[in-house]
Amino acid sequence: MEQIDLKTIVDDLEYLASQKDERMILNILIGNHPADIATIIQSLSQKPARYIFGLLDADTASDVIVELDEITKDSLVKSMQDARLTEIVDEMDSDDATDLVAELPTDVAEKVLDSIDEEGSDEVKELLRHEEDTAGGIMALEFISVPENFHVDEAIREIRYKADEVAQVYNVYAVNEKGVLTGFIPLKKLILAKSEQKVSSVMVTDVIKVTTDLDQEEVANIFSKYNLVSVPVTDQEGRLVGRITVDDVVDVIEEEASEDMQKMAGIADDEEIRETSAFKISVGRLPWLLVGFCGQLFAALVMKQFEASLKEIFIATFFIPLMMAMGGNAGIQAATIVVRGMALGELNPTETIKRLRKEVQVSLINGTVCGILLFAVVALVDKPPFGLVLALAMLGVIINASFIGASVPLVLSKAGVDPAIATGPIITTFNDIIGLLIYLGLVTAALRFLL
Amino acid sequence: MEQIDLKTIVDDLEYLASQKDERMILNILIGNHPADIATIIQSLSQKPARYIFGLLDADTASDVIVELDEITKDSLVKSMQDARLTEIVDEMDSDDATDLVAELPTDVAEKVLDSIDEEGSDEVKELLRHEEDTAGGIMALEFISVPENFHVDEAIREIRYKADEVAQVYNVYAVNEKGVLTGFIPLKKLILAKSEQKVSSVMVTDVIKVTTDLDQEEVANIFSKYNLVSVPVTDQEGRLVGRITVDDVVDVIEEEASEDMQKMAGIADDEEIRETSAFKISVGRLPWLLVGFCGQLFAALVMKQFEASLKEIFIATFFIPLMMAMGGNAGIQAATIVVRGMALGELNPTETIKRLRKEVQVSLINGTVCGILLFAVVALVDKPPFGLVLALAMLGVIINASFIGASVPLVLSKAGVDPAIATGPIITTFNDIIGLLIYLGLVTAALRFLL
Repeated sequence: MEQIDLKTIVDDLEYLASQKDERMILNILIGNHPADIATIIQSLSQKPARYIFGLLDADTASDVIVELDEITKDSLVKSMQDARLTEIVDEMDSDDATDLVAELPTDVAEKVLDSIDEEGSDEVKELLRHEEDTAGGIMALEFISVPENFHVDEAIREIRYKADEVAQVYNVYAVNEKGVLTGFIPLKKLILAKSEQKVSSVMVTDVIKVTTDLDQEEVANIFSKYNLVSVPVTDQEGRLVGRITVDDVVDVIEEEASEDMQKMAGIADDEEIRETSAFKISVGRLPWLLVGFCGQLFAALVMKQFEASLKEIFIATFFIPLMMAMGGNAGIQAATIVVRGMALGELNPTETIKRLRKEVQVSLINGTVCGILLFAVVALVDKPPFGLVLALAMLGVIINASFIGASVPLVLSKAGVDPAIATGPIITTFNDIIGLLIYLGLVTAALRFLL
Repeated sequence: MEQIDLKTIVDDLEYLASQKDERMILNILIGNHPADIATIIQSLSQKPARYIFGLLDADTASDVIVELDEITKDSLVKSMQDARLTEIVDEMDSDDATDLVAELPTDVAEKVLDSIDEEGSDEVKELLRHEEDTAGGIMALEFISVPENFHVDEAIREIRYKADEVAQVYNVYAVNEKGVLTGFIPLKKLILAKSEQKVSSVMVTDVIKVTTDLDQEEVANIFSKYNLVSVPVTDQEGRLVGRITVDDVVDVIEEEASEDMQKMAGIADDEEIRETSAFKISVGRLPWLLVGFCGQLFAALVMKQFEASLKEIFIATFFIPLMMAMGGNAGIQAATIVVRGMALGELNPTETIKRLRKEVQVSLINGTVCGILLFAVVALVDKPPFGLVLALAMLGVIINASFIGASVPLVLSKAGVDPAIATGPIITTFNDIIGLLIYLGLVTAALRFLL
């Protein structure tokens, strides 16, 4: 859908909504992909959005609602009658229904679970038992499995029987009499197999699977590593309990990357990109600003300790922004590579020492280059000895910042803390203070012996 | 594969390689997933890695090589005889073969293209015509399509005929007599259809497709928006020319997120996380460090202009790190949300003004909170009037930084420049200088009228 089209459609719909022209509105919307209807609805103002969403039949509404951004979804859900909500949840896949129910206020959630059909209600309750960001939390209960002693034609009959319930079928899973996953048949293989063949003789037995408690980021790494479109989920005993499809994993990958970027920038990881409340955005960003605030007040105290030196050689103050910025930049470079490498599973935690050594080597090269340049500039316009002090300080600041930038995320990760959190204001503030100490310490020492 | 296992396997293999124990090495490797063999090989030192990779048959080698990180792949490819390379390229899917050939030196690439079978060679040459980061650049030519007037059993025969060539089949595409894509049949639907039904009567005609020139980031956004596992690629006339599968898109999403993060941190976007040459890493990071370097030398000049004020009220120097850091943090927060929102297609470029207004509101709130806190602290330990100057400066610095942080990426994006590039050292340096001007300007003005 083109941007220009979108604007026209939105304007038309807002007008039609004000006229309560149901028929024309549905004429425009019906036939569009649910994701496109979602884009349209989240571009509308609140009132027409609610009115128009209310016109959709439960089936379409359930497809649209999973595609909406969090802000619009919350607003629509809040305005809905319980009966309408129940109707929509009833139409959803188990994983989406669970996500929606999990976000409802407890009393509404209970009402909805009491009103939807019993099978759906049991499924949602079952899925709610799992942590949100684990394989169990993102899996769905819609999949096709057959006993391994079935024949191929019986497997196809099972697909036919469940065709409505399971929208996307890529593989048919095979289980033994205990429900333990023993193999799978890709649909292509099933099509080419003879109907009287046994499932166990056609199936692939080397199954890549995950257990319910696996972290969703690791699930995503497995999809990425093995190029999967779906993965079966088993309990600790190997029994098949769910399936994760790649579309949910794509969401996980984008979500995890966004969260890491936001954490690295000092933004609460639940700040929605389309959040509209300035107050909510402020609240999510303020804590990290305040971490920096306190750290820099401490930096002011550090500077006060060096007041005598700074007054003696006033030009030294002019280079404080340079020292801080170079330390900050070098630290963020090192930290970003380490944080990203660990998130993608490309950086092996056992290689910690190797990585640190590499970063120190890099900082030696870059610190030396920047130091020499700084010496050249200062020696030209001021005194060479002061240029030398600045060059050494620059080298020290860059080495320190790179070491801290690379080591803090590695250490945090070993301690089980998300390393992305460290890359933002914490490392920057830390580097600023140590950088100031290195710089002003060197200047003070030089004043005694050199300058 | 567990970390501990990996270390043991790597140690064993390095020993076996030194003994040239072919049989034992293959015993260990065969039966593993190609992605796991790749993980093992990239953990080996260069010599055993080359030896062991050389033992793999061409089919396995071709599956393994696409899973290797760039560094290991380059090293192996460089050490290979042309004949071996040809053998491996011959076994690869068209898209992977194209990627590999594109990275070869021209003379080697020509030799390889001359030696592989003619169909493969034509395919690679065809794919090489497309830009690397477009739909045409990531699509493969392995897909299944049938004339729309075929019957279902003929479509199934086509799958059987191409089963070896096309590893993953999710949909069968239907084309008219001009080769124009007119619909598709998901395998599930094909299984449930009757063999005498016409393809045109079973197929879904509402096809989501992309053209060859679409940017890969937009392709990824389409997969994500419509929850696809594969998408057909057409030329400008709508003729079916290729297919993109979700595994390649997952790579694109991770790659684009990494690139954005690296650009935002001031790292060349081709720095590999597993890069081992400190020199190469340095070269990729140095340009951005030097941008910061020059900017901060300018900042030193700015400070020199305010030498008189700073000498008059020396305590003002102590708060320079605070002003700079708060501006930096607020700027990065605003820029990150804008850059990420645009990358995911969640932030509509038409909403520029709205977004800027939001960021200014947020900066007003956070700037006021930080300003009041700063006033309180300084009023307690020093003079209230100076606290007031600092508070006003803090507010000004934060508003300015947020505005620049949000507007520069938006403007760059409209000008067709990747906004992520702006979020790193450029915005930071720019903010530092303007922040200094705001702060020192206010201090100087206050010295005349207030302090």
